[in-house]
Amino acid sequence: MKNSQPFLMDVVPANSVIDVLKNKVILHAGPPIEFKDMTGPMQGSCIGAVLFEGWASTEDEAREILSNGTVSFSPCHHHNAVGPMGGITSGNMPVLVVKNMLDGTMAYCTLNEGIGKVLRFGAYSQEVVDRLRWMRDVLGPVLSMALKRKDGGLNLNVMIAKSITMGDEFHQRNIAASLNFLKEITPLIVELDLDEKKRYSVIKFLADTDQFFLNIMMAAGKATVDCARKIESGTVVTTMARNGRDFGIRISGMGDQWFTAPVNMPNGLYFTGYSEKDANPDIGDSAITETVGVGGMAMVAAPGVTRFVGAGGFEDALAISNEMDEICISNNANWSIPTWDFKGACLGIDARKVVHSGVTPIINTGIAHREPGIGQVGAGTVRAPLACFEKALVAYAEKLGISVE
Amino acid sequence: MKNSQPFLMDVVPANSVIDVLKNKVILHAGPPIEFKDMTGPMQGSCIGAVLFEGWASTEDEAREILSNGTVSFSPCHHHNAVGPMGGITSGNMPVLVVKNMLDGTMAYCTLNEGIGKVLRFGAYSQEVVDRLRWMRDVLGPVLSMALKRKDGGLNLNVMIAKSITMGDEFHQRNIAASLNFLKEITPLIVELDLDEKKRYSVIKFLADTDQFFLNIMMAAGKATVDCARKIESGTVVTTMARNGRDFGIRISGMGDQWFTAPVNMPNGLYFTGYSEKDANPDIGDSAITETVGVGGMAMVAAPGVTRFVGAGGFEDALAISNEMDEICISNNANWSIPTWDFKGACLGIDARKVVHSGVTPIINTGIAHREPGIGQVGAGTVRAPLACFEKALVAYAEKLGISVE
Repeated sequence: MKNSQPFLMDVVPANSVIDVLKNKVILHAGPPIEFKDMTGPMQGSCIGAVLFEGWASTEDEAREILSNGTVSFSPCHHHNAVGPMGGITSGNMPVLVVKNMLDGTMAYCTLNEGIGKVLRFGAYSQEVVDRLRWMRDVLGPVLSMALKRKDGGLNLNVMIAKSITMGDEFHQRNIAASLNFLKEITPLIVELDLDEKKRYSVIKFLADTDQFFLNIMMAAGKATVDCARKIESGTVVTTMARNGRDFGIRISGMGDQWFTAPVNMPNGLYFTGYSEKDANPDIGDSAITETVGVGGMAMVAAPGVTRFVGAGGFEDALAISNEMDEICISNNANWSIPTWDFKGACLGIDARKVVHSGVTPIINTGIAHREPGIGQVGAGTVRAPLACFEKALVAYAEKLGISVE
Repeated sequence: MKNSQPFLMDVVPANSVIDVLKNKVILHAGPPIEFKDMTGPMQGSCIGAVLFEGWASTEDEAREILSNGTVSFSPCHHHNAVGPMGGITSGNMPVLVVKNMLDGTMAYCTLNEGIGKVLRFGAYSQEVVDRLRWMRDVLGPVLSMALKRKDGGLNLNVMIAKSITMGDEFHQRNIAASLNFLKEITPLIVELDLDEKKRYSVIKFLADTDQFFLNIMMAAGKATVDCARKIESGTVVTTMARNGRDFGIRISGMGDQWFTAPVNMPNGLYFTGYSEKDANPDIGDSAITETVGVGGMAMVAAPGVTRFVGAGGFEDALAISNEMDEICISNNANWSIPTWDFKGACLGIDARKVVHSGVTPIINTGIAHREPGIGQVGAGTVRAPLACFEKALVAYAEKLGISVE
């Protein structure tokens, strides 16, 4: 993980790099789940994806083909991909292509849609579908052309290192990283021979989308853990992901096997007019950020988000990162945190340390409305359930032939 | 100062807003000084300005007209202007136009030239003059056209507030603010009907110039203090500026009168190949940033620059800002610092508190080579000399009829 070198190479249609998406298949966040078991926002996202793909023309038709087996489902994580919140990914959505130069591992993630009514939080209105089509027809192709002008892609470690010094933790807050991405991509886009309206719409969208880098960070995280997953021993956590029902983890020594437990409810701040009773339980693949040591693990880097935590002062942020440091095996000198006296971000959550200490990883997260079609209602923090780590450890002990009482 | 509302309105030729620049006049940083008394980098900047204006065609001719009274000199601060390092400003240089919406106070500052061989650090080679001409002919006019598309200008308090959360202190470090400016200005530039090469050159320059916002911050600071200077009582420091020989301050109760003392030498880190023996003494109007409570005063906001201070850890940065807080009369809630538990930046250095405590303001600064023509050799911190504050206090006491022993 420490030697990973993720580079952003391209943006391409998902079905050009993920074979299973040539069929009527939808990828989702977290461990495996069927449509009937999904919570509201993930179901809403599925409806939006079906409408976007043109597999149905009404919500009712969409629900029908989602329920009757016409459409099938698979976790993003099984296909070198990750997705925020619902994580819903279908064939014609553009995806970021990140390559880990350490060993060539590839990873994919959809593009961030901005805020408000967006698919990832379960909205599927015409506005949502229209934006997805613009992303398919304009944003994706323009980014692809721009990135192709940059031989060897964009070095994401450099952008992450810069931005962690600027108060990002890459889960709740990506404002600096999104600006650093804007700074790199804008000259490339301005150089393209392009329709002026298209150029303006892309630049304006990127300038306005403070969380654009979240999805880039997620793909970088996936390229990092999937490289690490090739080492098939030990108890380092290589996946943490939530499907809205179950929190699933995987550890290095147990390969592709998921260890799950029911997700927790996030604690957070709600948008005006919403409260905890509107909240969906914890959901999304975005805990890939914590898996590689940022997000909630790097709270000390991002005092701007500490108001989501405890009393919300700098000492609270520091305490969180110090606590997380106790369950990790190392620190990542590539991502040095000035507010932590330049110590590197935590790296390598060790399931043994989690179980031994009872300290579970803290995850910074958006909060979706529990009903489909509404969208984001807040943001906060949530703990990974201890049971996942216990199950993983028991299984690994058994694999090693150690008797577990 | 607290209620100031600086907005960036336009970029115009300096002589269109500063009448005296219609003549062969050069504005400089700090309190009044003549050419023969200027240190190397300020003399170098003057030579560059003369070559840029076409008043002379060789360095020797330039030195001649600078020395024989053909060209005359006046402080930027006397003309609603400020300039970094040498602060050299001549009629055809483009200047930023900032308006304080609180009372209409206007302030001006040249545009940041980027790093390396630049006029403000005393370089005057053909490369420097060519860049100044491009700024006059392309960068200035394009920024002017772009800003005119934004009714009412750009709200700088908002950009400063965002960027202080992203680790800028606006003197040594403007990386976030420059990106936030890029994000605002780029869509406006992309919308202009413009030659493609010019558009690209402007966007690329802005994307590459991490300190571009320094000069915007300086003009915002000047618009703030010149508004405050209309209150003609009390001992709040309304100007701190250095001409390379003298450090000059002004206080609210003494109007336009300067109180000076010899400048100190900066302590800092040097670029490879340079050391303290190459350094020019402290120079520039950029201490306007500290005068309004950022720069060194806001060290705690910018852990990325703490390596210039003491042991360079977070505690050092915190200690500096806590010390500076002791010599100020208030805090600016508009510019809340997350790493300081969301406390507002220091505001209003009180000359009485400085003299009483013996604690002088700390200033973050670039370091110029002492010879003309070379440029920047490092960056660090420097203290304002205590004697300026003592002299100002004595003068104010005398004005109030208080006998001073």
